[in-house]
Amino acid sequence: MTSTVGFIGLGNMGGPMAINLVKAGHRVLGFDLSEAAMSAHADAGGEKATGVAQMAAEADVIVTMLPAGKHVRQIYMGEGGILENAKPGTLLIDSSTIDVDSARAVIAAASDKGMPMVDAPVSGGVAGAAGGTLTFMVGGADEAFEAALPYLDVMGKTIVHAGGAGNGQAAKICNNMILGISMIAVSEAFVLAERLGLDAQKLFDISSTASGQCWSLTSYCPVPGPLPSSPANRDYQPGFAAEMMLKDLKLAQEAASSSGAATPLGAEAASLYSLFCNSGGQGQDFSGIVKFLRGTS
Amino acid sequence: MTSTVGFIGLGNMGGPMAINLVKAGHRVLGFDLSEAAMSAHADAGGEKATGVAQMAAEADVIVTMLPAGKHVRQIYMGEGGILENAKPGTLLIDSSTIDVDSARAVIAAASDKGMPMVDAPVSGGVAGAAGGTLTFMVGGADEAFEAALPYLDVMGKTIVHAGGAGNGQAAKICNNMILGISMIAVSEAFVLAERLGLDAQKLFDISSTASGQCWSLTSYCPVPGPLPSSPANRDYQPGFAAEMMLKDLKLAQEAASSSGAATPLGAEAASLYSLFCNSGGQGQDFSGIVKFLRGTS
Repeated sequence: MTSTVGFIGLGNMGGPMAINLVKAGHRVLGFDLSEAAMSAHADAGGEKATGVAQMAAEADVIVTMLPAGKHVRQIYMGEGGILENAKPGTLLIDSSTIDVDSARAVIAAASDKGMPMVDAPVSGGVAGAAGGTLTFMVGGADEAFEAALPYLDVMGKTIVHAGGAGNGQAAKICNNMILGISMIAVSEAFVLAERLGLDAQKLFDISSTASGQCWSLTSYCPVPGPLPSSPANRDYQPGFAAEMMLKDLKLAQEAASSSGAATPLGAEAASLYSLFCNSGGQGQDFSGIVKFLRGTS
Repeated sequence: MTSTVGFIGLGNMGGPMAINLVKAGHRVLGFDLSEAAMSAHADAGGEKATGVAQMAAEADVIVTMLPAGKHVRQIYMGEGGILENAKPGTLLIDSSTIDVDSARAVIAAASDKGMPMVDAPVSGGVAGAAGGTLTFMVGGADEAFEAALPYLDVMGKTIVHAGGAGNGQAAKICNNMILGISMIAVSEAFVLAERLGLDAQKLFDISSTASGQCWSLTSYCPVPGPLPSSPANRDYQPGFAAEMMLKDLKLAQEAASSSGAATPLGAEAASLYSLFCNSGGQGQDFSGIVKFLRGTS
């Protein structure tokens, strides 16, 4: 069964995600402020939408992949936006990584218009977007989740229903807050080990099979050597850029502040990634924070 | 081949470790300031030493299990201590968890007296000590490590040579610094998830198989439910007490300060465990920090 899918935001992530929908046989009306992105979409078999209003009026399903909550609020709830122009019953999927409050506000507004909607942020990066192997963390009502599943399956490999509206965002920022903190923890341990004359490979061997084991160590080791696949071995080319980690840590801090949760290490991790990004690390892989902690970035 | 082993420090850890040496057929001269600990040692087939000097003079091998670096310095380097009384060639094994600088100072002094010595702190807790399943992280010269191995094998299951003198301590504090930080990270994520209405089991399911995976989450989950074996399910009875985690985090901070390493999250983790211990958590399992972060400790 093919649908008319509107897709807004054809960037590094959205572009290849939209093309996977095209490959699955859907008519995909793409929209982006970049003419180059629109052309690439058309070259790959998609159609160029003339604007948000036209696209929303024609689409059965709309997917958005935008930078921040303010863009999502604007494109859905603003004048000439999706909620004003889409048919009741249109399925809405926001795959942007944004603040929980914005996600919940937009889903509530969509519900008022009779449009089922999920927040469905992803992990897996550009490679996952191109290969259709993304992980989607999905928040929203059961019916909305079920309706979104066939489209998410085309773009991803692992689809998890995390609960009601906004819970996709909540799951992503909780996970990535653990990730950001543990990457700094592992990096601090390697820097301390170096200073103490403890070989990095020794620390890797010991902690990999002990209580210090974590994904940041055993799947993404921040120093060159122990794990050939990690970005540390290719001069910290991302991978997952430090500025994206900073974005997620800031979203976690917004959510903590808004909900009244105390997250002292999450806050400190955000500060450390800010310092790293401000000192030139923003485009490097997030594991490059080890250089900043060592004083060699 | 049986030896005369001197064993100083017959506490919760040292007591059962000494008994495992007795069971292996060694003559074990035990010494402790507590008369009850001495009696327990004798009841289990050990001998009571009359003092450190007598014990040191008779022993082929000496094992120490003491609270802090100052005790280790005193018992080895002080007047009437081990280095003054032991025969040249006596093998020395310090299994205390102490600061790296003290470990290196004592091993250097032992070397000057012609006594091979290793620092060999353990992990595995009281259960590991009783069961002979401890992990030893060992620092010292190759010959000293080889000589110590038959004795460590009797008391432990995993014996790792981490490099030269002091590197056993370095490996332990680097690993446990990652552990302490990641336990707080996971706890902060669960507290934030609760505030956001994200179910703890959902977060566990998602992060266990994602980039937030870590031992603190998947082998020692700090909230009740997801992992039946974790102390969270028995009201945070240790396990590994918060005051012991605080000790290790303080040792890591001493080493960082002494060696010039910057470990901002390690420092913050030490502060948070101090706050938790000072507010009544010292005897609870270290995963109980989740209650402190939630405001319910």
